[in-house]
Amino acid sequence: MTDIPKYKLASRQWKNKKTIIDVKGCKIGGDDLFLIAGPCAVESEEQIETIASYTSKLGIKFIRGGAFKPRTSPYSFQGLKETGLSLLKQVSNTYDLGIITEVMDLSLLDTVYPYTDIIQIGSRNMKNYHFLKEIGKTDKPIMLKRGMDATMEEWLLAAEYILLGGNDNVILCERGIRTFDTSNRNTLDIAGIALAKQLSHLPVISDPSQATGNRDLIKPASLASIAAGADGLMIEVHNDPKKALSDGPQSLYLEQLGDMMPDFAKVAKAVGKTCSWSHKHEIVNV
Amino acid sequence: MTDIPKYKLASRQWKNKKTIIDVKGCKIGGDDLFLIAGPCAVESEEQIETIASYTSKLGIKFIRGGAFKPRTSPYSFQGLKETGLSLLKQVSNTYDLGIITEVMDLSLLDTVYPYTDIIQIGSRNMKNYHFLKEIGKTDKPIMLKRGMDATMEEWLLAAEYILLGGNDNVILCERGIRTFDTSNRNTLDIAGIALAKQLSHLPVISDPSQATGNRDLIKPASLASIAAGADGLMIEVHNDPKKALSDGPQSLYLEQLGDMMPDFAKVAKAVGKTCSWSHKHEIVNV
Amino acid sequence: MTDIPKYKLASRQWKNKKTIIDVKGCKIGGDDLFLIAGPCAVESEEQIETIASYTSKLGIKFIRGGAFKPRTSPYSFQGLKETGLSLLKQVSNTYDLGIITEVMDLSLLDTVYPYTDIIQIGSRNMKNYHFLKEIGKTDKPIMLKRGMDATMEEWLLAAEYILLGGNDNVILCERGIRTFDTSNRNTLDIAGIALAKQLSHLPVISDPSQATGNRDLIKPASLASIAAGADGLMIEVHNDPKKALSDGPQSLYLEQLGDMMPDFAKVAKAVGKTCSWSHKHEIVNV
Amino acid sequence: MTDIPKYKLASRQWKNKKTIIDVKGCKIGGDDLFLIAGPCAVESEEQIETIASYTSKLGIKFIRGGAFKPRTSPYSFQGLKETGLSLLKQVSNTYDLGIITEVMDLSLLDTVYPYTDIIQIGSRNMKNYHFLKEIGKTDKPIMLKRGMDATMEEWLLAAEYILLGGNDNVILCERGIRTFDTSNRNTLDIAGIALAKQLSHLPVISDPSQATGNRDLIKPASLASIAAGADGLMIEVHNDPKKALSDGPQSLYLEQLGDMMPDFAKVAKAVGKTCSWSHKHEIVNV
Repeated sequence: MTDIPKYKLASRQWKNKKTIIDVKGCKIGGDDLFLIAGPCAVESEEQIETIASYTSKLGIKFIRGGAFKPRTSPYSFQGLKETGLSLLKQVSNTYDLGIITEVMDLSLLDTVYPYTDIIQIGSRNMKNYHFLKEIGKTDKPIMLKRGMDATMEEWLLAAEYILLGGNDNVILCERGIRTFDTSNRNTLDIAGIALAKQLSHLPVISDPSQATGNRDLIKPASLASIAAGADGLMIEVHNDPKKALSDGPQSLYLEQLGDMMPDFAKVAKAVGKTCSWSHKHEIVNV
Repeated sequence: MTDIPKYKLASRQWKNKKTIIDVKGCKIGGDDLFLIAGPCAVESEEQIETIASYTSKLGIKFIRGGAFKPRTSPYSFQGLKETGLSLLKQVSNTYDLGIITEVMDLSLLDTVYPYTDIIQIGSRNMKNYHFLKEIGKTDKPIMLKRGMDATMEEWLLAAEYILLGGNDNVILCERGIRTFDTSNRNTLDIAGIALAKQLSHLPVISDPSQATGNRDLIKPASLASIAAGADGLMIEVHNDPKKALSDGPQSLYLEQLGDMMPDFAKVAKAVGKTCSWSHKHEIVNV
Repeated sequence: MTDIPKYKLASRQWKNKKTIIDVKGCKIGGDDLFLIAGPCAVESEEQIETIASYTSKLGIKFIRGGAFKPRTSPYSFQGLKETGLSLLKQVSNTYDLGIITEVMDLSLLDTVYPYTDIIQIGSRNMKNYHFLKEIGKTDKPIMLKRGMDATMEEWLLAAEYILLGGNDNVILCERGIRTFDTSNRNTLDIAGIALAKQLSHLPVISDPSQATGNRDLIKPASLASIAAGADGLMIEVHNDPKKALSDGPQSLYLEQLGDMMPDFAKVAKAVGKTCSWSHKHEIVNV
Repeated sequence: MTDIPKYKLASRQWKNKKTIIDVKGCKIGGDDLFLIAGPCAVESEEQIETIASYTSKLGIKFIRGGAFKPRTSPYSFQGLKETGLSLLKQVSNTYDLGIITEVMDLSLLDTVYPYTDIIQIGSRNMKNYHFLKEIGKTDKPIMLKRGMDATMEEWLLAAEYILLGGNDNVILCERGIRTFDTSNRNTLDIAGIALAKQLSHLPVISDPSQATGNRDLIKPASLASIAAGADGLMIEVHNDPKKALSDGPQSLYLEQLGDMMPDFAKVAKAVGKTCSWSHKHEIVNV
């Protein structure tokens, strides 16, 4: 290439002090381990209500849930759209939860904006630079998922596009990269989490669900992410994974999530993080 | 995944007769080898005029050129935008050339639509399903570049999204996939060209410039693409590659393109294709 | 790494004149397209006799066939071993064919050496540097398959190990690299064939069977390889692919091979290569 | 492929109880976190003595060090060979350390065997099936590194070859796979560690040095490996990394290793593992 692409605003050289994003009472990128849980897609009032009721009891402050679902096949479930957003808002009000949901396309920004607390940018849009520029003009925190074919530099350059738009509140989310080995859905780039933290001042969270595609691996992948220095986790959970309209095999059962949270707290504590939600659990003193 | 993604309209099972797209007097997907040439980005009137003058003399009927340039770094040249489109139109009128240029985002569709004969969808948008659905409602031919992390099935499913919108005129474009080997910019999936032709009725063209990133490899990659059954080639060429604002190293010098065209014709003939432009060249009878 | 690995003897800088290897009357790396055909594994006298009888009639001068088979699973067929070598020798004598077969391990070199005309080094051994050093002390031509995870530089450095041993007769064989897309068994690095020719003076041949793993793609992958400048092809063929003990799906039927050879000759001619075997076929004058 | 490769002896279905390997007083695969440290290559008496003296004080029971070094370039340092083995033995005697070193080729087995306590099989030999069969006939524990292009299934099938030889004491070692992202030397497959533990009864250890190629990432990659369930770690350390003859950039300074060990212990404790060496450190009570 004639020019060497390089990020500036996203780098530690530009700003060494780590960025802490304050949203709905959470300080993302600070000392406290940030947690998001929820279904891949909002499917019904009963579904999202059941899930939100459970996760809020665990002390989890943010709910995820797709309303507009970008699916590989046009014949797959495409999401409840505005109805899905309303359902998210409803449980958000009931349980005082922050919302994170994806804006798939600029044309949907105005629709999604009023409902969400954090705007999610999907892997598929990480290199959609026109989109990134425009989204950078918004004033809500943005979670930028890494493209599954994106190098570390490309990921940070994508963040740079948003930062240049004037929005400083960018959260990086590692969700696995595509490799030759299909025994997992993607390959969680665990050292990439640590490297992103070293190169950038932005918070980095991990999505073990998308990375592994396998509910049996969510716990070890989550613990590893915490140990590697992730600022948070975004985890898919469903009240009835067998009947989930999307990503069932990677969705935890509600109880599984509850059972593993004390372990999250133990590892978090071992690496010097706090877990403000841990008083909700009977955590064995370690 | 809970559902098995699968394409229908894009498949040979659905339509065995190959799709031939008639645009500006070219029949893409027919017996004649279709050629597109032009710069990565439109940079100036002089540049595009010099290039168009030359390529039209070679008998090449379509010109490419980016006006809105999605670049990995926000600090790289981002394109001349509407001015670039006007310049393309100008040389199109002078030399009777068809135009192919990219629509980077739905919000730019109305701007680009009046200028272009074929709408290009970039690799970065191949999995932007909302975009694909909307673009499928247009009535101009669409060239869908393969995502650099897209499997064959994902590529054909992306075409399916467009076809479902009602637009039957989809051209597939193989432009290299991302692999561990960085000795080339990407890895041209040559067998993928043949496989796409076997699985689908849609025309498949090859972009050896993006695939190799290296002007010294354009000729062998082009000849290989023709031999593998590609319906056409899209090649980057520049009047002054050393000074190109983008993709200089992969841009051919004008004379290089002229010199290799007789070889394109020879290999095309060897695999049963015609080259309506070949009377413009002194092709040695083989 | 503390040191920058770099090849010397394998490079064009060291020796610009291309290496032509004279073996059993074939000049590999010269103007004539070199062909090898045969089964993945030698399975029985009847099998190898049927195949050799057919391929020799096509004018193909070399037969391939595994005797010691390195298989991913220990429960798969492991080859006929010495018996397989004897059967190869038998058909070699009957039909005046050159033999190429693999030496899997140094401990098998003495066993295989007397039987083979070209020693094949498998992809799995391309980075077995101790092995490469020792094999470089032999005096028979060596075909070095590219490792499926080997960069261009690593491949040429592997050749360097052999050349340093004193054996100048190294043939490079591209057989596909491992990528995320499993729609083909491997991804044939077609531009890599051209790049290897540019960087090195050594002959480069293509193995479309191993690269695609799919008999329906052998023809386009072969034609593409010839067009890209490959010095030869190594193709798997079987008298009864459905019953083959290994690699059946990628083995051509005998008649398929015969049918596509005139097309090999046409494309070879189009890129300036001769086909000494083509008088055996009724090749349409192009 | 005509046959479906599948492992048996390596699977949990065959043996659900986890394999614990007792060697030099360590129980690999048991509750205690197993640690190996040492240089990439043995370079001199002073070097190995300085390192062994330090690591033994930390309570680390095993030393690693290459004597025969398989290097990508023939012009790189190739190891001290027998002299290197003797130096390993010397420090082993002085400090009561177990030795792990690589057997690169069957022809070197007899040379290396008397010196080593665990036989290391390098990534480059993971698919060298003839070698695996023979090595399976030995009676010392074997550490099988994952090939950098090996799927989970291929890795377990490689273990199967050794187990079929009669040697039950196989340790799996994840050391990173090759992907498109070169910001790290390899990509540590952290979920692969957990998956290997689920599919197999064999111990799994992690090599964060080879995986990341970057000393700044050793600590997070090590902590993540422990959290994901690894039974141990193998870490490269050097008394003078800047002058290391190989792999300097990924070698820890001695003090760095010492400094991070209390953190290893904290995370190990958090996931229920013990650290028999931890009494050597002033570990903050957590």
